[in-house]
Amino acid sequence: MQFNQLLRERIRETDSLVCVGLDPDPDKVPAPLMDKPDSVYRFCKAIIEATSKFVLAYKPNLAFYESLGVEGWDILRRVIRLIPDGVLKIGDGKRGDIGSTAEKYAAALFDLGFDAVTVNPYLGRDSVAPFLKDETRGCFLLCLTSNPGSKDFQTLRAGGKLFYEHVAERAVSWNGNGNCGLVVGATHPAELRGVRKAAPDLPFLIPGVGAQGGDLEASVMEGTDGAGEMAVINSSRAILYASSGPDFADAAARETLKLKEAINAVRAQKKAKPA
Amino acid sequence: MQFNQLLRERIRETDSLVCVGLDPDPDKVPAPLMDKPDSVYRFCKAIIEATSKFVLAYKPNLAFYESLGVEGWDILRRVIRLIPDGVLKIGDGKRGDIGSTAEKYAAALFDLGFDAVTVNPYLGRDSVAPFLKDETRGCFLLCLTSNPGSKDFQTLRAGGKLFYEHVAERAVSWNGNGNCGLVVGATHPAELRGVRKAAPDLPFLIPGVGAQGGDLEASVMEGTDGAGEMAVINSSRAILYASSGPDFADAAARETLKLKEAINAVRAQKKAKPA
Repeated sequence: MQFNQLLRERIRETDSLVCVGLDPDPDKVPAPLMDKPDSVYRFCKAIIEATSKFVLAYKPNLAFYESLGVEGWDILRRVIRLIPDGVLKIGDGKRGDIGSTAEKYAAALFDLGFDAVTVNPYLGRDSVAPFLKDETRGCFLLCLTSNPGSKDFQTLRAGGKLFYEHVAERAVSWNGNGNCGLVVGATHPAELRGVRKAAPDLPFLIPGVGAQGGDLEASVMEGTDGAGEMAVINSSRAILYASSGPDFADAAARETLKLKEAINAVRAQKKAKPA
Repeated sequence: MQFNQLLRERIRETDSLVCVGLDPDPDKVPAPLMDKPDSVYRFCKAIIEATSKFVLAYKPNLAFYESLGVEGWDILRRVIRLIPDGVLKIGDGKRGDIGSTAEKYAAALFDLGFDAVTVNPYLGRDSVAPFLKDETRGCFLLCLTSNPGSKDFQTLRAGGKLFYEHVAERAVSWNGNGNCGLVVGATHPAELRGVRKAAPDLPFLIPGVGAQGGDLEASVMEGTDGAGEMAVINSSRAILYASSGPDFADAAARETLKLKEAINAVRAQKKAKPA
């Protein structure tokens, strides 16, 4: 099945748009696990066990594992295996390189078991193509990111359109295998509407609703498709570090459920509204 | 010492602009090493031993190690240690993420021992800042890459300038610590002149002269600074796979020396020319 179709089915099965960012910082591991052997892995395991019934997807950001050195890659491999069947695994590496090298990155990430990855589009079509070759795996292209620096280049105006709008347009044209999506930050709710208009059917991965302070309601309203679907809404720190005490897993579960319900309330509102 | 100054000193000490891309493909390891234990590491070791006296730098592309799984990161760590003192180590990962995550990537790569890294600028200033914080380490921003896809986004015209020219301009303004550089592909010799004009003092990392067919003479002429310095000219496949037989190391040495001499001949020509 093409990835974008699979995503839609998983959204219906889980009734959730929530993605938990598995970005473990060894300095922030909750007290009960701190300084224990394999603490980062055990932290991720506890978070997955507590939250998996509320989520659509998990999204490990590779930087957090890479910064742990050789061991980090082994932790990542083991964490991915903990994610239950039926929950999507998104590898957030934002890779991008010339075609022959991008093939290596695509193989590395998909071999790890990721269903989808994030990719930086700056190097253009041949750098993205290897990630789109297998229709069962998804590729979310960075479009408009959630950070302050997004205004440095992404919003330059070229030929009557902003740069990130060019990316959205290309993504639509590169979606021949039904597996291309876009990353659009929740910190830009007004712009989300424009990107959704340019790419009505593509899945959006929307980071920035938690610690980064993005607008949840607007993100769901503008970021989902006409059916209130096709959006993956990520929160990392607000869930992982909801508590630093012995109740960290319960607190993470509570935050995840709260986010799921808040999102679904907006989805219900959207459906009730005349289009 | 600031990285860009260190680079200039190393160029003078080695009298070389040559960078060898350590991008080992396990399927292309020369016959004498193929199927031997630790063949990728031994291949890199033989290449480094054969070529190090002719080079300014080595540049491992991280994709080639990442695609080997957990073991690949261990190989990378050991390969970096083989590079002799006095030869620069450039980590080609093209990373780029929001500020807090970029700090993790910067720590991961500089802790591995790299003197400089390549970074994708698409996420803007806060995504680049962590790589520029330590003035002794260099950060080469992707500007105009060597691949066909470079025309998809990098050459869009915004506000009277091409997109990659905006990147070059920002790089100049972000060079407060004297450690920012640019990646400009040898497959665009005419454009190199414009980028050099926009960033007269920054070091350029210039890939694409070997297997990718870039124009060596124009790259050296246009890519070096006024003193015929501040360019790092990379060749990967043409050196690594100069021969697939038992003479592969000698063949790699020959190709490296040939490239060094060809580059230095153009530098001599440039110096002889009235400016």
